[in-house]
Amino acid sequence: MHKTLTPWKILHSEVLLERLPWLRVLSQEIELPDGQIVKGYLQLNEPDFAMVVPVDTSGRIGFIRCYKHGVCGIDTQPPAGYLEPGEKPLATAKRELLEETGCNAADWHRLGDYVISGNRGSGRAHIFLAMNCRQVEEPASGDLEEIEMVWLNFQEVYQRYRRGDFRQIATMAALGLALDWLKQDK
Amino acid sequence: MHKTLTPWKILHSEVLLERLPWLRVLSQEIELPDGQIVKGYLQLNEPDFAMVVPVDTSGRIGFIRCYKHGVCGIDTQPPAGYLEPGEKPLATAKRELLEETGCNAADWHRLGDYVISGNRGSGRAHIFLAMNCRQVEEPASGDLEEIEMVWLNFQEVYQRYRRGDFRQIATMAALGLALDWLKQDK
Repeated sequence: MHKTLTPWKILHSEVLLERLPWLRVLSQEIELPDGQIVKGYLQLNEPDFAMVVPVDTSGRIGFIRCYKHGVCGIDTQPPAGYLEPGEKPLATAKRELLEETGCNAADWHRLGDYVISGNRGSGRAHIFLAMNCRQVEEPASGDLEEIEMVWLNFQEVYQRYRRGDFRQIATMAALGLALDWLKQDK
Repeated sequence: MHKTLTPWKILHSEVLLERLPWLRVLSQEIELPDGQIVKGYLQLNEPDFAMVVPVDTSGRIGFIRCYKHGVCGIDTQPPAGYLEPGEKPLATAKRELLEETGCNAADWHRLGDYVISGNRGSGRAHIFLAMNCRQVEEPASGDLEEIEMVWLNFQEVYQRYRRGDFRQIATMAALGLALDWLKQDK
């Protein structure tokens, strides 16, 4: 039997900072279930993003290598990008895959969407597996990054995953799900 | 052969908002490798946190159920908490496990640390697996949450993981690594 847990009540919400479309910081006055009042509880509104683990017809997994400012260094990660206003996550995933790698994929699988911060919100990551990818054009990313595309075989990705070689938590969540899916698929 | 990728150069950094110890928002002027200048690139400084996947002596995996404001609902997750100033991640992990579940663990394994946002920073998650957990006292969390402790067997956790039942990306990253480790261990 599960305990009954009560959501918090928002008594007041104030915008502290707004830099749209990237960020809104809210300060909230909260009433906890025991009646206690908490002031200045922060919420971060950031746009959702889609992340795509691409797999080509020979089973290799595709990554981009680029400088990531949040990591303060070069990192290897699946293609990813923010949802445009009104864009569906799958449309973003297809667009980012094409822009960053020049690939289309024949089969798409949703691996779920997950909140970035349990405390602050910070948007959601929508994770996809793109099977039977095929290069149809040259990559043409309009983003800020210099990008290198790399394809690695399953075992190499798995070893690097287990070593914790990748720097971003979304990469680790996406690879954990994708590798498990690919293992089941074999 | 890897392409040579150049880090960005920070020309100027300005604090837009500071709510320590929880948040500092920076706006930076960046020089990209091609010489292009980007103004107002946002960085979020948030404290690191530790997340612990606890496994008891019969192989069950421990979770807490509680209301998470960032998720806007009740969520199930491994015990976790922010590092205190100067605190080592493993010390945080041990403290949070004890506070939230009343457990000690005999064997600790590091499953890596990962940046929350490749673009914004937002702190890091330090992930641990705590084997052979044993309850030594009553939970006594000083946090804001009403908490329920639940222990689930491996198969139940794995099924829920594959269904994407957990709402937070850090939970998914931690469970992916922990379930893989436990499978190898069997």
